[in-house]
Amino acid sequence: MKPAIILLSGGVDSTTSMAIAKAEGFEIYALSFDYGQKHGVELESARRIAAKYEVKKHLIIRFDMREIGGSALTSDMEVPKERLDNAAEINIIPVTYVPARNTIFLSFALAWAETINSEDIFIGVNAVDYSGYPDCRPEYIKAYEDMANLATKASVEGRAMFHIRTPLINLTKSEIIKKGTELGVDYSLTWSCYDPVQKNGQYVPCLRCDSCLLRARGFEEAGIKDSLVT
Amino acid sequence: MKPAIILLSGGVDSTTSMAIAKAEGFEIYALSFDYGQKHGVELESARRIAAKYEVKKHLIIRFDMREIGGSALTSDMEVPKERLDNAAEINIIPVTYVPARNTIFLSFALAWAETINSEDIFIGVNAVDYSGYPDCRPEYIKAYEDMANLATKASVEGRAMFHIRTPLINLTKSEIIKKGTELGVDYSLTWSCYDPVQKNGQYVPCLRCDSCLLRARGFEEAGIKDSLVT
Repeated sequence: MKPAIILLSGGVDSTTSMAIAKAEGFEIYALSFDYGQKHGVELESARRIAAKYEVKKHLIIRFDMREIGGSALTSDMEVPKERLDNAAEINIIPVTYVPARNTIFLSFALAWAETINSEDIFIGVNAVDYSGYPDCRPEYIKAYEDMANLATKASVEGRAMFHIRTPLINLTKSEIIKKGTELGVDYSLTWSCYDPVQKNGQYVPCLRCDSCLLRARGFEEAGIKDSLVT
Repeated sequence: MKPAIILLSGGVDSTTSMAIAKAEGFEIYALSFDYGQKHGVELESARRIAAKYEVKKHLIIRFDMREIGGSALTSDMEVPKERLDNAAEINIIPVTYVPARNTIFLSFALAWAETINSEDIFIGVNAVDYSGYPDCRPEYIKAYEDMANLATKASVEGRAMFHIRTPLINLTKSEIIKKGTELGVDYSLTWSCYDPVQKNGQYVPCLRCDSCLLRARGFEEAGIKDSLVT
């Protein structure tokens, strides 16, 4: 089995992307980040999903993006309770954007890929039902891949050609959920909410942030019940 | 004054690169990394240098590259006590190479640059008197810059065009030291050794690793005394 690195946030997209990698026959090395995100509870989902998928290894890298700030997910800024549907078209990028986040995540993935002799890095980015983040677009991913293949010892020595795999990039959220459901994904294990609220000592999704609204619409359009919220 | 991010390891090259940025009139935001390197003592140098240069801010980001490994600088592997002079030509990259290190460092720099509205990131890479690391070469830097300008909200919104500034890339080590000396750099504050040894309760350079040998030859060829080791 060939090894693959899967960026696993614990959300719908990254979990589906892991299921796709597994179905393609890869041995899974799951990579998550504890970066000071308000919704750190997503890491509990990531841990449960990694355990359920019996991944070869689940690595959680810790650093503090709050020291850099610039995002509603890592600072005092409030997480907006709305979804701007045509945000991407009109070039409005929400304040939940985290500066260079995917670039940082992919860079740790690249380091790990090189170390375990993997050429495949799966990232669940999506450029259809998404929040308009620049680091989810195909042109960005292509540029990252080009850079990655000049960056490492393995590529310079001709031992590796890295591929940034984005199996979801052209799917709608409902298509992603249908695909995952076909592959047996248990979405009740996943977490999407950017701004969790405490209820009876447990975190529950706010159901009003961009990420909750995207998730709800995806399930609705897919005609599938979201067992996390019901 | 325009702000610039300076990757500051505390070594000869990054310190010279900071002095050049300062001479160009930039306001300095110094960025260092505590990544589990054996020569963590370099961070003490970085702190002293940042203080001496009265930087606007010195940020030290912490994460653990030992979990990823793959390098003599972050694992049990021994740091070689020699210098392979034609390593780059014959495509031998030493075991002190750290997987994707500059890619990770530049990615945090990019995040910080975006947050403080800076377009300039200085990195003291050098492709002449160097250890053959792939992520020090001009073609890598160019690819990183191309990627960076697709990665961020600031670039997509047309507010920023990022420049990865490499003022030392074509200089020999002795030219770097001469240049820094002209700019008043106090190299006794810097640290180069990959494999520090304890002596009378203090860390001293081993004087035999690749980095020590490069430094020694640079000072010798520049005809300047290295006050750190004498």
